[in-house]
Amino acid sequence: MHRYRSHTCAALRKSDVGSTVRISGWVHRVRDHGGVLFIDLRDHYGMTQVVADPDSPAFKIAETVRGEWVIRVDGLVKARTEETVNANMATGEIELYAKEIEVLSAAKELPLPVFGEPDYPEDVRLKYRFLDLRRETLHRNIVKRTQVIAAMRREMANVGFTEYSTPILTASSPEGARDFLVPSRIHEGKFFALPQAPQQYKQLLMVAGFDRYFQIAPCFRDEDPRADRLPGEFYQLDLEMSFVTQEDVWTTMEPVIRGIFEEFADGKPVTKEFPRIPYDEAIRKYGSDKPDLRNPIVMEAVTEHFAGSGFKVFANMIASNPKVEVWAIPAKTGGSRAFCDRMNAWAQQQGQPGLGYIFWKEEDGNIAGSGPLAKNIGEERTDALRTQLGLEAGDACFFVAGEPEKFYKFAGEARNRAAEELNLTDKDRFELCWIVDFPFFEWNEDEKKVDFAHNPFSMPQGGMDALENQDPLTIKAFQYDMVCNGFEIASGSIRNQSPELMVKAFEKVGLSQADVEERFGGLYRAFQYGAPPHGGMAAGVDRIVMLLTGAKNLREITLFPMNQQAQDLLMNAPSPATATQLRELALRVIPSKKD
Amino acid sequence: MHRYRSHTCAALRKSDVGSTVRISGWVHRVRDHGGVLFIDLRDHYGMTQVVADPDSPAFKIAETVRGEWVIRVDGLVKARTEETVNANMATGEIELYAKEIEVLSAAKELPLPVFGEPDYPEDVRLKYRFLDLRRETLHRNIVKRTQVIAAMRREMANVGFTEYSTPILTASSPEGARDFLVPSRIHEGKFFALPQAPQQYKQLLMVAGFDRYFQIAPCFRDEDPRADRLPGEFYQLDLEMSFVTQEDVWTTMEPVIRGIFEEFADGKPVTKEFPRIPYDEAIRKYGSDKPDLRNPIVMEAVTEHFAGSGFKVFANMIASNPKVEVWAIPAKTGGSRAFCDRMNAWAQQQGQPGLGYIFWKEEDGNIAGSGPLAKNIGEERTDALRTQLGLEAGDACFFVAGEPEKFYKFAGEARNRAAEELNLTDKDRFELCWIVDFPFFEWNEDEKKVDFAHNPFSMPQGGMDALENQDPLTIKAFQYDMVCNGFEIASGSIRNQSPELMVKAFEKVGLSQADVEERFGGLYRAFQYGAPPHGGMAAGVDRIVMLLTGAKNLREITLFPMNQQAQDLLMNAPSPATATQLRELALRVIPSKKD
Repeated sequence: MHRYRSHTCAALRKSDVGSTVRISGWVHRVRDHGGVLFIDLRDHYGMTQVVADPDSPAFKIAETVRGEWVIRVDGLVKARTEETVNANMATGEIELYAKEIEVLSAAKELPLPVFGEPDYPEDVRLKYRFLDLRRETLHRNIVKRTQVIAAMRREMANVGFTEYSTPILTASSPEGARDFLVPSRIHEGKFFALPQAPQQYKQLLMVAGFDRYFQIAPCFRDEDPRADRLPGEFYQLDLEMSFVTQEDVWTTMEPVIRGIFEEFADGKPVTKEFPRIPYDEAIRKYGSDKPDLRNPIVMEAVTEHFAGSGFKVFANMIASNPKVEVWAIPAKTGGSRAFCDRMNAWAQQQGQPGLGYIFWKEEDGNIAGSGPLAKNIGEERTDALRTQLGLEAGDACFFVAGEPEKFYKFAGEARNRAAEELNLTDKDRFELCWIVDFPFFEWNEDEKKVDFAHNPFSMPQGGMDALENQDPLTIKAFQYDMVCNGFEIASGSIRNQSPELMVKAFEKVGLSQADVEERFGGLYRAFQYGAPPHGGMAAGVDRIVMLLTGAKNLREITLFPMNQQAQDLLMNAPSPATATQLRELALRVIPSKKD
Repeated sequence: MHRYRSHTCAALRKSDVGSTVRISGWVHRVRDHGGVLFIDLRDHYGMTQVVADPDSPAFKIAETVRGEWVIRVDGLVKARTEETVNANMATGEIELYAKEIEVLSAAKELPLPVFGEPDYPEDVRLKYRFLDLRRETLHRNIVKRTQVIAAMRREMANVGFTEYSTPILTASSPEGARDFLVPSRIHEGKFFALPQAPQQYKQLLMVAGFDRYFQIAPCFRDEDPRADRLPGEFYQLDLEMSFVTQEDVWTTMEPVIRGIFEEFADGKPVTKEFPRIPYDEAIRKYGSDKPDLRNPIVMEAVTEHFAGSGFKVFANMIASNPKVEVWAIPAKTGGSRAFCDRMNAWAQQQGQPGLGYIFWKEEDGNIAGSGPLAKNIGEERTDALRTQLGLEAGDACFFVAGEPEKFYKFAGEARNRAAEELNLTDKDRFELCWIVDFPFFEWNEDEKKVDFAHNPFSMPQGGMDALENQDPLTIKAFQYDMVCNGFEIASGSIRNQSPELMVKAFEKVGLSQADVEERFGGLYRAFQYGAPPHGGMAAGVDRIVMLLTGAKNLREITLFPMNQQAQDLLMNAPSPATATQLRELALRVIPSKKD
């Protein structure tokens, strides 16, 4: 027989009854039922119930074992009685009567229990991550994560993509977030950087004549800790294709991502055909470029109903500024003063002056609008609003007014809040969409200049003509996001592969050709030697896994995360370097004044 | 029709004749045949011959295009005449008569030609890597590399392994090679390190209750440049299993690696059943723990034939030191004075006093030994040697004498040299084997102390009993290598998962329990909370790809390599950090005296 096991802890079935077998694993739990010991033995694959009765030669050792000890058990497989069969366990029809137990590894008193998964301080969990990872939910999440990534690889290969690894020791990237630097020992005073994303390399791959690249790519950003981002590294499903339009990227990737969601959604519905929503429309309808489409509320402009109306606050704003609009946030089933007042109070907590509303109720067989706003604009306008929005008695509507670019975010939050409060959002589904036609530039109010809104490497719609002749803030890019349940899960674009267009685009944000050459020399040089039209996207692996596991915290889907202070408590990193290391790197640590 | 292509450059066949199609790609070559232009158009997938005759509306543009421009061609597929069919090309039965050509991207004058692949300086290649990568051989090598890695993933999944990613920002590892350090911005004066290998993490994964881990793992060692190692990063197929003996690792991994070799060997024979050769035996037979088994020479000890013989140099050595042995390196077909003298001269170049030899020739119907050594020991001993070694007329044998641990490396080199010179090695095959039972400790002559011979985390054979009672230099480890054609392609062991054994083993090399806790705290702590017996190995992806592609240089199988001075000439890394970056990291560069 094998030294450690003839079967895993998930393998034994009724058909094995009568066999003498050997299993090994961790003691999940020991129970004493009237002198008979029941040991739940656990390994990576599952759990088996071991029975040690007082007559067994194994009983003496069984009495000594404690939770999380690793033991080997030889024994006889017996069928459980009908009453004790456990249908929730793969091995629930049998139990193993121990004949011999060997302790392979004892465990000291546990700093953190594995069985039962009680709440425990994060720092203890992270220091003893090897114990924390034995918890059933975390183990299951991590396994699911590996399955999702394996499915990504499989599906990408199925649609003709090849996985290439790009360098991890690379050049500092002057755009975007902060780099992690790696001092060069051979070149004193010089530094490598860890890639924030393989953006330039994947584009260089296309210029180098490859096609349909993908990579489960480690990415690194030295950001200050944030609740929704772990310090250090994260993973992207990164991809790029040559000789494509954005339509090609969408039709290639939509089935891949839908397939992955369907495979791991545990039966929850997944959007069949992803709507393609222009950025401007998403902002107007949902107040966000990451709309949660499970929320049925769609906002509408209702400016004309308030222009010249008796509600002077809105009417005066509209009269004095042609940019002013009034948006309606219709709230089905929200038609009570109590709810509307709660929303109003919430808006004030958000720093808003308040949230105007109308709610409708049945009065003498008619549908009547209620609330101060309805009184001010009168019955006719109130009814016209209701008709436009398709509302009924029992519904409400909230209104925000001003310049849309200033209020749309708050309107989007109010939309979410209303749906949340009214339970309008069906949580048990995955609603996916594309957001397309992102603006290429944006106004940087602090520096009073035009900046790239997203990716400086994207192709502006309209090309050179648009860059030369159009108000830059009206130029759209061939740039798109994929959004699921209110989260951006992927982002991509068709790239600007023309050196002339690249220089012209950077000019708009105040950078010269010399700047482009200095900052993006590799890519800029490459575009001058035959660059194919190309585009792609990158999907956030961690976010997708969080959606599919339902985990609320990145540490619940990550094997060995750092804590929020960017420390690895298990391995004790970061830690001081030795004098020799610093000397070899020609570095000295100069503590800043703040210490 | 699609904006850029209806077909790839590898897709068109005779069945497409008569179709109007669109293809895009790079101009590989333009030839002018009597006024008709032939353009070989190339993309990732293949090549198509485009014809532009002077009547074509596309001719005018066709005349302007140059090598490596990217163009789109619309045209009519025509069958080639029988004489012009090219059987070596997938599209060799057709050609595309251009009706319209669009230049998608022109190319400046090339710093490096793509067509024809002439020799070019390495630094130009690396600076313009995007052009270098378009070369047919490099493109093919890189694609093969991706296929080999995909096959590794597929085969590992097929035998029940799951791919887990371990952290890249981790703790400095005090053993082994030099770490790359990453300064922490948040924790001034402290540093992360890039992993030299995921050794500790994969063991922690096993302790955390997972099983059958693998990873195509990026590894980082800040070594001085070496011909056979690129600066920076390299990849391992890393794996670990729980509840296993070394036999399990061998029987699991041998079919995986054999399968990958067979899949990519282009028909070359691959060892069916890998011999398992104990380290001591490998040293004695091949003078190396990385024997090239394509070389048929097997060395043998022949000490007794020289003890007390007339060859006083050897005889006196044997008499004065019981450790002295004489090893024979039999060289079939090497039986000429010229060859033997050449080998002797080579040995002197290697710093040896010389290389004793005997060669046999037919003399009057008898087989007679020749050379000074044969004369000294006489006919009887010469013939006994010949009989023991199975040699004939026309063969030779070389002899080295001394303490084997001092001469075995040279003997192994002489074995290789002789086979090389005599063409005894069949190059067109892959000969794989396991080298097993490596010594656990070795003698550090410089520091006059015992050191770990290989992996300090390996399990010593004989366990605590051996550590307490055996001469440490005689203890073997459950440690093994996989070797192919003279290269170590994988290395692994069963791990020492007992905290007591770990402390005892480190004691032998002069490290205390406190040292172990400080240096390997994560792992040491983990072993105290229920650690399963576990083991695994790591295979060198780069080396395996080099063997399978036949590439002689790592840069021929690596996408974006650094040069031998550890610089990325394409992206210009490493480069100076900005003052802001250094201030944020609380670092100052202090150039060393050597500048």
